[in-house]
Amino acid sequence: MTDKEYDPSSTHPPLPPTPEDEQFACLRLLRSRRVGIATYKRLLIEHGTAQNALAALPEVARAAGVSGYEICPEGVVRAELRAAHAQGAKLLHISHPDYPAALAELDDAPPFLWLLGDPALLARPMIALVGARNASSLGTRMARTLAHELGEAGFVVVSGLARGIDAAAHLAALPYGTIAVQAGGVDIMYPAENTTLAGDIAKQGLRLSEQPMGLQPTARHFPRRNRIISGLARATVVVEAAAKSGSLITARDALDQGRDVLAVPGHPLDARASGCNMLIRDGATLVRSAADVLEALGPISGTGDPPQLPFLPAQPDKPKRSLRETATLHLQILSRLGPSPIAEDQLIRDLQATPSDVAPVLVDLELDGQIARRPGGLLARVV
Amino acid sequence: MTDKEYDPSSTHPPLPPTPEDEQFACLRLLRSRRVGIATYKRLLIEHGTAQNALAALPEVARAAGVSGYEICPEGVVRAELRAAHAQGAKLLHISHPDYPAALAELDDAPPFLWLLGDPALLARPMIALVGARNASSLGTRMARTLAHELGEAGFVVVSGLARGIDAAAHLAALPYGTIAVQAGGVDIMYPAENTTLAGDIAKQGLRLSEQPMGLQPTARHFPRRNRIISGLARATVVVEAAAKSGSLITARDALDQGRDVLAVPGHPLDARASGCNMLIRDGATLVRSAADVLEALGPISGTGDPPQLPFLPAQPDKPKRSLRETATLHLQILSRLGPSPIAEDQLIRDLQATPSDVAPVLVDLELDGQIARRPGGLLARVV
Repeated sequence: MTDKEYDPSSTHPPLPPTPEDEQFACLRLLRSRRVGIATYKRLLIEHGTAQNALAALPEVARAAGVSGYEICPEGVVRAELRAAHAQGAKLLHISHPDYPAALAELDDAPPFLWLLGDPALLARPMIALVGARNASSLGTRMARTLAHELGEAGFVVVSGLARGIDAAAHLAALPYGTIAVQAGGVDIMYPAENTTLAGDIAKQGLRLSEQPMGLQPTARHFPRRNRIISGLARATVVVEAAAKSGSLITARDALDQGRDVLAVPGHPLDARASGCNMLIRDGATLVRSAADVLEALGPISGTGDPPQLPFLPAQPDKPKRSLRETATLHLQILSRLGPSPIAEDQLIRDLQATPSDVAPVLVDLELDGQIARRPGGLLARVV
Repeated sequence: MTDKEYDPSSTHPPLPPTPEDEQFACLRLLRSRRVGIATYKRLLIEHGTAQNALAALPEVARAAGVSGYEICPEGVVRAELRAAHAQGAKLLHISHPDYPAALAELDDAPPFLWLLGDPALLARPMIALVGARNASSLGTRMARTLAHELGEAGFVVVSGLARGIDAAAHLAALPYGTIAVQAGGVDIMYPAENTTLAGDIAKQGLRLSEQPMGLQPTARHFPRRNRIISGLARATVVVEAAAKSGSLITARDALDQGRDVLAVPGHPLDARASGCNMLIRDGATLVRSAADVLEALGPISGTGDPPQLPFLPAQPDKPKRSLRETATLHLQILSRLGPSPIAEDQLIRDLQATPSDVAPVLVDLELDGQIARRPGGLLARVV
């Protein structure tokens, strides 16, 4: 990926399909307030390029009744690029051949990833190993054994660099290739106790994040990060997880993404097994050893075709909706949404409207902070 | 069952459908050398009554080339009945209304059971709890909790009176009703360490066995006993079991019998969980608590109709096979059988013969000790 990345020190003209200015504009659009991935994609579709979308954004915000809307300042994006350059982090756009096809398939695939380490690992088959922070000694041993044996079998082990199961899995997989997906900036060592491990992974493996450089992770960043862990991998193995835990969010993400979920059982009187046992009751494959994982996955095949995701062309102009029609649709949408997320598909069906009618209104409402998107194509009202 | 059981001290004439003399003859036929349950049933079908079958048995044995065949002496059966009387054990024939319908359904249902304790428990819904003798403390706790909660929910807990899981389940279920199925005679305390428990079960619960009074159990009796445990129960819950264990035989019996199998998982690094984890991978329902068991079973319904299994009438006479034809069939059967059991159905299809042609020849060969029947309708050559 040496020839197409954004490199602020480069004096060579950037190559298609992501010219330097457009990539900069994409990042700026994505970093703008309340522009989530769905909105980002919608704006690109409607306006053809990020530069056009940025130009139109104030008007979109004004039409949505948002006053004082401000696009992400250019200086913020420049500072992010400078910080990445200082750390040796590389920016990987979703249209780049190095971007993993399995991740690009997701509806909410990150448009950009920051990479620190060896991007060649992204071309290899991956499996996610996740689990509890307060792991038992049996769980930690199991994570180590599975990571070691899956690494030997040719898989790259993906995890979240957390304490407990994650750290054990990364450490055991380090000689074979391991990828840590971070909830904060790729340059932020979190948790601090895994600083040495994080350094080793940057040298021998790969760390990556969709978040801006320097971002300190907070609670809300972890569930979003989990979809990338499961999205990279052919399957997610939950090694040890309590009933309500981040690992179960990763497992649910994997199921939403149509990926396999596997789980290591434990005794029902051990609370740390309750999440895994629940997954198995719900149909996850029971894992006793790496052999069970390999059997579930079948042989390692080729890495598949590189993703083919150039920017989508702008759709042909459509007659504009009247202000009244738009306001009516706003009210209809808000009356149907509550704090509990519902599926966008379902909402559109309930409204007896077409996706192309509803989608721009959802963008307005999201920019206005009245609704929020949740993983799995869900929408909720912000209250 | 007070009016129909065999009671050697009774001076009243026995009632139909099991007159005293015929019941005595049935028990004598069943206790005769190499007369297994399938042979017993076949002889009754072919000869109409046990008394007729006993009369024909020497000729059947001679035709099969067995010299010196001896029917179980009358004195042996009388001694068994006297021992039972002394212990207060009651004989329950499969045609008796107290005989559990679920057990009577089996192809190899015991024609007789000796009972010690409260036969009314046989009319209630039952669930089997089985598991390892060398149970872990977690496993023992789990057995206790499940037995207690299933007892409270109205189920009679059936188990095998072994050390470990069995004993824990019986003990916890004692106040609610529990049935111990014994591998040896119902009057034999085995293992000795469970003597107090066995005594309590005879007082508060029920012990039963298909074996003659006084029989000391040996290794081969335990697998046969296990089919009765699973056969009595609506479902079998395996609480803790290693990879090759008697509990897995009970689970396989339950599956062969079309009953549900449930299993309590454990950590794969604990060898005592390997059998249960294997069952769950094979489709057994994962059990975390009694609630999971109750959910799998659905509500307790009525106990169903009493079994209607009078003796089957003799079939109409058929032309006799020539000696040569019989000898040819002998050779064909023996050439197709080896030490690994195969299904009787399959054998009959392979021979391109009818069941009614093959069955008597199988009886000859079993009496002659050349073939042996295995659970699940399987036949093997004795080598």
